[in-house]
Amino acid sequence: MTNVTIWNEFRHEKTDKEVQEMYPNGIHGQLAAFLGEDFQVKTATLDEPEHGLTQDVLDNTDVLVWWGHIAHEEVKDEIVERVYQKVLQGMGLIVLHSGHLSKIFQKLMGTSCDLKWRENEEHCRMWNVNPGHPIMNGIGEYIELEKEETYGEHFDIPAPDELLLISWYPGGEVFRSGCTYTRGNGKIFYFQPGHETYPSYYNEKVQQVIKNAVLWCQSTRNQYPNYGHFESLEGEDKR
Amino acid sequence: MTNVTIWNEFRHEKTDKEVQEMYPNGIHGQLAAFLGEDFQVKTATLDEPEHGLTQDVLDNTDVLVWWGHIAHEEVKDEIVERVYQKVLQGMGLIVLHSGHLSKIFQKLMGTSCDLKWRENEEHCRMWNVNPGHPIMNGIGEYIELEKEETYGEHFDIPAPDELLLISWYPGGEVFRSGCTYTRGNGKIFYFQPGHETYPSYYNEKVQQVIKNAVLWCQSTRNQYPNYGHFESLEGEDKR
Amino acid sequence: MTNVTIWNEFRHEKTDKEVQEMYPNGIHGQLAAFLGEDFQVKTATLDEPEHGLTQDVLDNTDVLVWWGHIAHEEVKDEIVERVYQKVLQGMGLIVLHSGHLSKIFQKLMGTSCDLKWRENEEHCRMWNVNPGHPIMNGIGEYIELEKEETYGEHFDIPAPDELLLISWYPGGEVFRSGCTYTRGNGKIFYFQPGHETYPSYYNEKVQQVIKNAVLWCQSTRNQYPNYGHFESLEGEDKR
Amino acid sequence: MTNVTIWNEFRHEKTDKEVQEMYPNGIHGQLAAFLGEDFQVKTATLDEPEHGLTQDVLDNTDVLVWWGHIAHEEVKDEIVERVYQKVLQGMGLIVLHSGHLSKIFQKLMGTSCDLKWRENEEHCRMWNVNPGHPIMNGIGEYIELEKEETYGEHFDIPAPDELLLISWYPGGEVFRSGCTYTRGNGKIFYFQPGHETYPSYYNEKVQQVIKNAVLWCQSTRNQYPNYGHFESLEGEDKR
Repeated sequence: MTNVTIWNEFRHEKTDKEVQEMYPNGIHGQLAAFLGEDFQVKTATLDEPEHGLTQDVLDNTDVLVWWGHIAHEEVKDEIVERVYQKVLQGMGLIVLHSGHLSKIFQKLMGTSCDLKWRENEEHCRMWNVNPGHPIMNGIGEYIELEKEETYGEHFDIPAPDELLLISWYPGGEVFRSGCTYTRGNGKIFYFQPGHETYPSYYNEKVQQVIKNAVLWCQSTRNQYPNYGHFESLEGEDKR
Repeated sequence: MTNVTIWNEFRHEKTDKEVQEMYPNGIHGQLAAFLGEDFQVKTATLDEPEHGLTQDVLDNTDVLVWWGHIAHEEVKDEIVERVYQKVLQGMGLIVLHSGHLSKIFQKLMGTSCDLKWRENEEHCRMWNVNPGHPIMNGIGEYIELEKEETYGEHFDIPAPDELLLISWYPGGEVFRSGCTYTRGNGKIFYFQPGHETYPSYYNEKVQQVIKNAVLWCQSTRNQYPNYGHFESLEGEDKR
Repeated sequence: MTNVTIWNEFRHEKTDKEVQEMYPNGIHGQLAAFLGEDFQVKTATLDEPEHGLTQDVLDNTDVLVWWGHIAHEEVKDEIVERVYQKVLQGMGLIVLHSGHLSKIFQKLMGTSCDLKWRENEEHCRMWNVNPGHPIMNGIGEYIELEKEETYGEHFDIPAPDELLLISWYPGGEVFRSGCTYTRGNGKIFYFQPGHETYPSYYNEKVQQVIKNAVLWCQSTRNQYPNYGHFESLEGEDKR
Repeated sequence: MTNVTIWNEFRHEKTDKEVQEMYPNGIHGQLAAFLGEDFQVKTATLDEPEHGLTQDVLDNTDVLVWWGHIAHEEVKDEIVERVYQKVLQGMGLIVLHSGHLSKIFQKLMGTSCDLKWRENEEHCRMWNVNPGHPIMNGIGEYIELEKEETYGEHFDIPAPDELLLISWYPGGEVFRSGCTYTRGNGKIFYFQPGHETYPSYYNEKVQQVIKNAVLWCQSTRNQYPNYGHFESLEGEDKR
């Protein structure tokens, strides 16, 4: 069974009443509630020792889900490096919403991952531009969210390997809101919804996308390739 | 259960003793033998009415496998059109070996799909350049075939959505031998091995790739999108 | 100097007073007016012999610009085939607006190229999602058009090699409105603006994009590769 | 005129007689010799203050060429960060040969950039798989080098935005040896040839590729986009 570890910064929920009411068990709690229907789920948070991401936890994780916002800088570089190495070796990674500015996402992308944003109580329509992709399975033509934080282009990411969703906001913006990447043996999915004061993670289609992404992100059985010096496979091949 | 229809031109096997000995039940027979281990399999051949690809057969096909070589021109345009429409609507398509010059592959690619070739009893090493991809699951670093027809670049295809395999031949050639594409809702995989006089379809890794590709090519539950005139989703939105 | 041939269906302009007023010299006339500032320009239209696209004209064309709408079906298949062969051999092709349903674009894409549309006097904002691309040179963050026909997703095209622009419409739609492709040696650019009753081709940024695209679409000096049977480059290379 | 800065580690040339004989003016000297025919050229090396890459030098660089091998670790992180920021803002970057393991390339790629290698006096044939690309202009079907270090897959890079060259080696290897990427506003080209004891940078086709790449890598006039909080472009757009 697929092992999913849900990492949440878990800070807004401790201090902000509005967030507490929206996510009384933390954002990780709500993510665990629906992912637990299909997968073996653990959670980890910033203030635990090693941010809850010990080598042992990661060695038993098939797919890591990442939510962070106001404390990206507090994530220790050595933990980022540990997660990074696991992704290259094949662990899946799903980066949600404001996780676009997390150290791990920036390190894997090689860009600033910056964007335009506005909290304006706007609704959002995410158009499915890749209906044959397994992450879009069962989503139909679009996902409608009654409220979501507005994210706008330019989004400073590498051109996605696959672009799955483009968001429309009434204030005049578009955003590449569902993007896949491969780094080493690992597969990565960025998904925009999830502002801490909006009920996005209660939306069934949002849940479906994240579930689909867990399946898509899983590793193959292939080992991380061998690198370095090697002998010819063809015997004496000099001219 | 996934329904796979295996289409074979089935001409070499009727006239060429060497091919008969290699594939006594036809190339489709051998493909059916191993795909039948995991999937619900049917076969269809060129000389059947409607080439065995009636609307009913296609309507009950999740993934179509295609092998053709000397009789591409005999495939009727109306059948090609029928297959094409099904691919756009989500049917998976696996094009094998000399099927690169089939009408259906050319129509879906929008290029000549031509290449360099040589029958020279050469061996072939197919390097896995995308170890995290589900079609490469369990393949490891490369596939070695003791004999395969030499195919060389330039291969006149659109840049693949995903490049999975690059073949090496001792005569000095390379070839993009595992390529994925999406067209409409349909997913397509081109895979090089399968010259009619060589035992490639008895090779376990080749079989594994084709089985993996069947799973990868399957349709999502999303319907083919609505096209044409439509009303605004936002009510009165003129400035 | 780059030779540009502008092909226009040139039918709306003959019968529709509104279009005549907008483009008194035809859409091709206006395209020629600004492209002629930088390039050697010719025009060709549907009702000329061979649609104005004789072999000689195409042999002297570096980049072909295509505008069509209501008469796609009247374009003869043999002319489409002629243009297609030239693109594979390296001629650039810029497909504008409703040209998305032209036979030549469909043939090169391998999909229906269909989309959602609405004529609703809506404005349009085209976001630049690839600011480093030469076709986007000098465009800045977006192009604003006070009126354009609404085109919406899903747009049934292959995933673009490069996605340059995403359009936003107030009615709730997004659209991949600037897309590049390579087919054979030829480079192709699809660009959305240009409804026949709107002044899009008088917009300076639209003009800049099309000029940039002409430069980008030009052929290299490389010949179309050799295909077919060939000898080993390595001498006696059998095992 | 395009300003090119050529950065060379310049260590092998100080201690290794074989390298001194091959590149008596340093590898940077030979790169400068032919790039100077078409561009305004400067050089910079590791042992200069700030590795020769002061803010002022970078602010006056359109395209940076990078060669490094045995001293990647000696490149200071603050200089890497400086180069990185310039790339995001639009400076072109050409990474040569063993530069694949440089800090700057790893940082921009988000992967290990590791590979297989062997020094075996083997020749190398680099097949042009993208004949319409401007970097391949004038290269024809392949580049033949009588000796080059063998580099083999798997090459741990993100899938290139564009794959231009695939190398063949007689010992049984293939390698993606010409790859383009975009990061922020900056364009990046990785190119395999250039082992310090082989005459690759005297080869005319290799020189042509690097010259073409300088032109391709140049920045557009677009500024680095604005990021962060922003107001709606559409006025009162809440529902």
